[in-house]
Amino acid sequence: MTDTLSAALARADANLDSSVDRLFELLRIPSISTDPAYAGECRAAAGWLSDALGELGFEASVRETAGLPMVVGHQRAQDGKPSVLFYGHYDVQPVDPLSLWEHNPFAPTFAEENGRKVIRARGASDDKGQLMTFVEACRAWREVTGSLPLNVSVLFEGEEESGSPSLIPFVESTAEELKADVALVCDSDMWDEATPSIITMLRGLVGEEVEISAASRDLHSGMYGNAARNPLQVLAEIIASLRNPDGSVAVEGFYDGVAELPPHVAEQWKRLPFDGAAYLGAVGLSVPAGEAGRSVLEQITSRPTCEINGVSGGYTGEGFKTVIPAKASAKISFRLVGEQDPQKIREAFRAHVRARLPEDCTVRFSEHGGSPAITVPADGPMLTKALAALTDEWGKEAAIAGTGGSIPIVGDFKRRLRMDSLLIGFAHADDRIHSPNEKYNLESFHRGIRSWVRILDALAR
Amino acid sequence: MTDTLSAALARADANLDSSVDRLFELLRIPSISTDPAYAGECRAAAGWLSDALGELGFEASVRETAGLPMVVGHQRAQDGKPSVLFYGHYDVQPVDPLSLWEHNPFAPTFAEENGRKVIRARGASDDKGQLMTFVEACRAWREVTGSLPLNVSVLFEGEEESGSPSLIPFVESTAEELKADVALVCDSDMWDEATPSIITMLRGLVGEEVEISAASRDLHSGMYGNAARNPLQVLAEIIASLRNPDGSVAVEGFYDGVAELPPHVAEQWKRLPFDGAAYLGAVGLSVPAGEAGRSVLEQITSRPTCEINGVSGGYTGEGFKTVIPAKASAKISFRLVGEQDPQKIREAFRAHVRARLPEDCTVRFSEHGGSPAITVPADGPMLTKALAALTDEWGKEAAIAGTGGSIPIVGDFKRRLRMDSLLIGFAHADDRIHSPNEKYNLESFHRGIRSWVRILDALAR
Repeated sequence: MTDTLSAALARADANLDSSVDRLFELLRIPSISTDPAYAGECRAAAGWLSDALGELGFEASVRETAGLPMVVGHQRAQDGKPSVLFYGHYDVQPVDPLSLWEHNPFAPTFAEENGRKVIRARGASDDKGQLMTFVEACRAWREVTGSLPLNVSVLFEGEEESGSPSLIPFVESTAEELKADVALVCDSDMWDEATPSIITMLRGLVGEEVEISAASRDLHSGMYGNAARNPLQVLAEIIASLRNPDGSVAVEGFYDGVAELPPHVAEQWKRLPFDGAAYLGAVGLSVPAGEAGRSVLEQITSRPTCEINGVSGGYTGEGFKTVIPAKASAKISFRLVGEQDPQKIREAFRAHVRARLPEDCTVRFSEHGGSPAITVPADGPMLTKALAALTDEWGKEAAIAGTGGSIPIVGDFKRRLRMDSLLIGFAHADDRIHSPNEKYNLESFHRGIRSWVRILDALAR
Repeated sequence: MTDTLSAALARADANLDSSVDRLFELLRIPSISTDPAYAGECRAAAGWLSDALGELGFEASVRETAGLPMVVGHQRAQDGKPSVLFYGHYDVQPVDPLSLWEHNPFAPTFAEENGRKVIRARGASDDKGQLMTFVEACRAWREVTGSLPLNVSVLFEGEEESGSPSLIPFVESTAEELKADVALVCDSDMWDEATPSIITMLRGLVGEEVEISAASRDLHSGMYGNAARNPLQVLAEIIASLRNPDGSVAVEGFYDGVAELPPHVAEQWKRLPFDGAAYLGAVGLSVPAGEAGRSVLEQITSRPTCEINGVSGGYTGEGFKTVIPAKASAKISFRLVGEQDPQKIREAFRAHVRARLPEDCTVRFSEHGGSPAITVPADGPMLTKALAALTDEWGKEAAIAGTGGSIPIVGDFKRRLRMDSLLIGFAHADDRIHSPNEKYNLESFHRGIRSWVRILDALAR
């Protein structure tokens, strides 16, 4: 280890308390992008990050889009050194049901879980805690050497949790400015609490909202029950039809372009520690619900799926109301793998619904994002250097992994900027992202910062 | 016609404007019984009615129960005359979705619909407008003769829209006080706009709320999708399983105790004007959705049904959230006919759900009311007199009818007080009860008052 790397790591350690303070400041901003009521808070988070980058010597600014703004920063003084583009998102998921939070989701706090110190807040893990590991690693380098070891650009998005509508136009219009040798994305999990990983397979996503309408108004079930088509019944029948009895997805052509795992990856996955029963057991489940005969690991990372994310219709308040609603709606998402085409999946789904629509019903579809799955080459020199840096930091061989969630930016970087991404994150499956009581292990935050300190050094060589 | 009847009818006509004013006062009280937040308003409505009865010479009071109070009034000066117990309910349905109301639901107003003057407000028809027809008929008699033609008791309930939890204990504890020769219930429709009717067949009701739980918390569909059981998918499959492809209800034993219509009633129904296509067409529908081969009239009055009244689970706000919820729930109601046993139906439904519950799921049921169907003898002397009075008022032969909605009080009066009921109402199918923009025809209100003036006279003979 060089003296400067050693000094930068020591500085990251010494800074930890103030690094946490800065993260807490960011976590206090309720930047929920899916709800237009929080647009002002999203802008506040963007401004905070732009200022934070500016303090670290970045040429940083908030950039307007048709939706919520981007934050872009550059620090490109190192002639002849490689260039990286770091991506993260400052927006967070909604917090409902609020009643299940043990504390205010936007008043970050420490807690202890299973003997580990954790940071609790909405966004602690997804993605504010993760993106701040990189910012604080830059701080350590900057404070020790007055500069960064290589040329660094940063892109923070504010619409990741709401389908990234502004991302492609923005990346296209700033392609020259953003282009780097490699992208670094910190929005993923470690393999397990001891094993770091780089993700090379990401599932894609198609989000759809479907609204079934029947009568021209809500009806009294005593006066119209039986005779009037009930959109809740119709919707239930359509949802039920989306899965076959063996757990596979019943939409026609859904598995076109889905390949089996390459044998060497399948082999590595058998070696790596992963306990499917424990993974499900941690959330109170015991039986994999998806395709029969597929392991939990396959079901959540290398197989496509269809999930019902929300259903509403009729009277859902306290007590009872004997109504036949005029409408019922569902939010449904598909996770894609391999060569599945988002547009074809969307069309096949809509055709599936239309084919099952009884008389007197109409359907309205709304699109909520679509992106194909993406595979990152698992043998490039940058990847190899980063794997080694992670292995050094954690004392355990870093894994090459797939992830069940989708991170569309990786596909956009590939297609629009012809740039591969290294997906390196320090989150854990039990971080409860998108759920009440989201947390981020303090160790993830601390060693995440240290990991980036090492990776910046390694990639600069 | 006697001079006094003639005078009482003239007084009802002369009073109409002030009768409407009094109804509007009552309609301004948002007495929503299904939402505990409105308990104070329900009590205000009870107090208002008790005062109104007191002004008309009733010995009236608000009576506490374990839930919302009853209003009871008596005026029993007519020795040797028959006694009647009039029943109505002062509580109303919730008003959501509020955005579909054209005006404040609790600011009653006049409007014109299809050339008819109507009163618009939540409760205008169900049941405040209807119960006030009787109160105002009493006023007309009282103002003309200083008394009522027979012995009248009144019972107003405040929990009809929320399953009447306090009704049976109250009726049992006040049986001696309430007992009369016949009950009069004003909570039903006319046969059509020109034809009055007395209802002799009422469907029963079983209300159930079912909540399916799987994981111990909400999950991110990217991290758990496929492998984690999704309660929304499970709930949809269970709901879909409740109906057979021919539209019949698939719960085992559901049709036990369901008889075909007696031939003479079936015959009368063919004679009476009822246009099933127009009935559905008025709410934008064209095809009866229930049991194949049954007419619309049968489906909505003489056949049992199962309706999904509300479903909720997952993220249902603006935008999209890729969550697998921990729970999903549905409100489901069954309308019963003939000898169907509410308790057996409830148990069969629960067994149906439990038999379809996959591994890792639990279910919680909540009961929301249960009552058997009821049939009132269609040939008693009281009924015959009331039919004749209605025929006189409307100039058209009054029909003997069934109703799709349930009015559990009729069964309770029969079982607890051994008292038959005459169900006489002036509402219409297009009154939008339980829906936005509820209305009551001014003609229903006016001629409803006149009808009761005549019926009180007829029953006194």
